[in-house]
Amino acid sequence: MSTPMTKSSPKAKVTTPTDREIRIERVFAAPRDRVWRAMTDPALIAQWWGRGNKLVIEKFEPTRGGHWRIVEDGPEGVNGFEGRFREVTPPERIVQTFEWDGMPGHVIIEHVTLEDLGDGRTRIVNVSLFHTTEERDGMLNSGMEVGLNESYAALDEVLARMDA
Amino acid sequence: MSTPMTKSSPKAKVTTPTDREIRIERVFAAPRDRVWRAMTDPALIAQWWGRGNKLVIEKFEPTRGGHWRIVEDGPEGVNGFEGRFREVTPPERIVQTFEWDGMPGHVIIEHVTLEDLGDGRTRIVNVSLFHTTEERDGMLNSGMEVGLNESYAALDEVLARMDA
Repeated sequence: MSTPMTKSSPKAKVTTPTDREIRIERVFAAPRDRVWRAMTDPALIAQWWGRGNKLVIEKFEPTRGGHWRIVEDGPEGVNGFEGRFREVTPPERIVQTFEWDGMPGHVIIEHVTLEDLGDGRTRIVNVSLFHTTEERDGMLNSGMEVGLNESYAALDEVLARMDA
Repeated sequence: MSTPMTKSSPKAKVTTPTDREIRIERVFAAPRDRVWRAMTDPALIAQWWGRGNKLVIEKFEPTRGGHWRIVEDGPEGVNGFEGRFREVTPPERIVQTFEWDGMPGHVIIEHVTLEDLGDGRTRIVNVSLFHTTEERDGMLNSGMEVGLNESYAALDEVLARMDA
């Protein structure tokens, strides 16, 4: 069920600006409004977030104070993820919490910015802030980059299929 | 609806061990098992957590990965609080997240330890870790100490009423 385009898709740039942060940057070949829709419409999220794994989007309320919860059913088993929206400013900014059921109570703050590059392309910048360096390093060592690039490759495909 | 014993009850010791933490310490005249019950039984929590305000305990699942949500209806209005349990080790340790609806997505990690003082008394130590110093200072400047001491005074009363 892996995404065939993974290998040919550009890789996200992953850096560590501080000892409690991970910064992810990736350009997509679609205008910002389209990227925004793909990131906030549950029917579209279901097509890329799980990298081909079955997803159940149990809750997705993209508004300040709203909650989200997604359960992924893949070869590694069933994994739940959830969080809450701190800020939702269409079409440019989402700040939300992120928590994996496997480490309940370890909460990441994701600051996601969509930059309109003015030529029909959009840059997603995602800065994640952790409570501790240990939690940050645990995420870096979890194989997150592989999953991230697979999700983004699937997002490329969804964006290509969407109407402008 | 304020608690009449507030003025005569001991005040909690509040310190700031690091620039992202608040440490709260308070001794209670009850054995540890009794304090544990008062802190984990919703029917008992309802008697002290709200300092006399009406409480609705919508969810309280004190187990790893469980959620909690309490809505307080007081003179300042309706305020919801929620979080998730990271660790629940009876009768000595709870680690949980804490979030106020008024600042959704700003998540505090509370490390609560119950120390058996061996003479029928119990010390509660609560170390809260914030993502940023600004959030920590916002909490310190919110009047939290007044509410905290009112809650603890009400907890004194609940503990005195409970069977040993």
